[in-house]
Amino acid sequence: MGGNVERKVRVAEVTLRCVLCGLGTLAAALVATDKQTRTFFTMQKTAAFTDVRALVVLVAANAVAAGYSLLQAARCLFFFGSSVGLRSSRAIAWCVFSGDQALAYVALGAAAAALQASVVSKRGLPAFQWMEVCGLYGAFCRKAGGGIACAVAGVLAAVALAFISAFNLFRLYGKKKNGGATTW
Amino acid sequence: MGGNVERKVRVAEVTLRCVLCGLGTLAAALVATDKQTRTFFTMQKTAAFTDVRALVVLVAANAVAAGYSLLQAARCLFFFGSSVGLRSSRAIAWCVFSGDQALAYVALGAAAAALQASVVSKRGLPAFQWMEVCGLYGAFCRKAGGGIACAVAGVLAAVALAFISAFNLFRLYGKKKNGGATTW
Repeated sequence: MGGNVERKVRVAEVTLRCVLCGLGTLAAALVATDKQTRTFFTMQKTAAFTDVRALVVLVAANAVAAGYSLLQAARCLFFFGSSVGLRSSRAIAWCVFSGDQALAYVALGAAAAALQASVVSKRGLPAFQWMEVCGLYGAFCRKAGGGIACAVAGVLAAVALAFISAFNLFRLYGKKKNGGATTW
Repeated sequence: MGGNVERKVRVAEVTLRCVLCGLGTLAAALVATDKQTRTFFTMQKTAAFTDVRALVVLVAANAVAAGYSLLQAARCLFFFGSSVGLRSSRAIAWCVFSGDQALAYVALGAAAAALQASVVSKRGLPAFQWMEVCGLYGAFCRKAGGGIACAVAGVLAAVALAFISAFNLFRLYGKKKNGGATTW
């Protein structure tokens, strides 16, 4: 594998980690500030993200994803130029691989749950007499939708990162024995 | 890595694939046959899994997981004794790795969405005036809960398989160069 490919993988990794950090922060911020109060006749009703458990989980998961990605991006940039150091340690590669896998699973689970909640909020569930709430709380739903869209985009980045960290781990096992001339 | 460890990994892989096949089938069967009719005064009301989109997705995902696991288990058993053949092909290992990863993500997403739906069904969501339905449709909820529990257990098996197939892929890269004396 040429140094050119290796450099591209590193650039892709750092870029994806920065993108994931940005998307996670944006998703958490959008959902965590999501609140709408409406007056029906004389009653004031408020919809807040804390009412929906799936949105609370989404905020927590995305905040964790953003923090983790920031730390990982810093690690990547710190060791960007070096071909030795922490990059060549199998233990570290295993940790990064495990962390990235866990992050991808958690981010996906949280996004799937929030997506399910948003579909029911948008369409209602007539069999259970759950009315759709986006007609009443339009602004609330739009903001939550934006947050969920960011979270879903973040999941794609997290899955791509899980593949890259797997690739980085393979490389350590494949490369050491024949001095970098691994065929793919 | 000794032949003993290798054998254990193969046995674990086949076992997990059979377990996943069983759990997927059970989850899909439990949820797909879930239906309850109740009479309120003179009105007959029916709750079926088709009313809840998340349960339809769960059935589809678990049916696919069961079918895929059955085929993979057959492949594992067919090549169980052989140390060469398809097992040593990187392309096949990559396919199995990708398939297992995709399966783990799909199974997790479907289970998370169904879990979110079941929590709202169980507790209701007062802010949106969604009443809890498990008081009305107790048998429906219990059966769906059993199906979701099987699906969650299946997700654990799918994640473990994703790790094993990653391990099998690493092994091809690490082992070829020094004849099986990879240190871990």
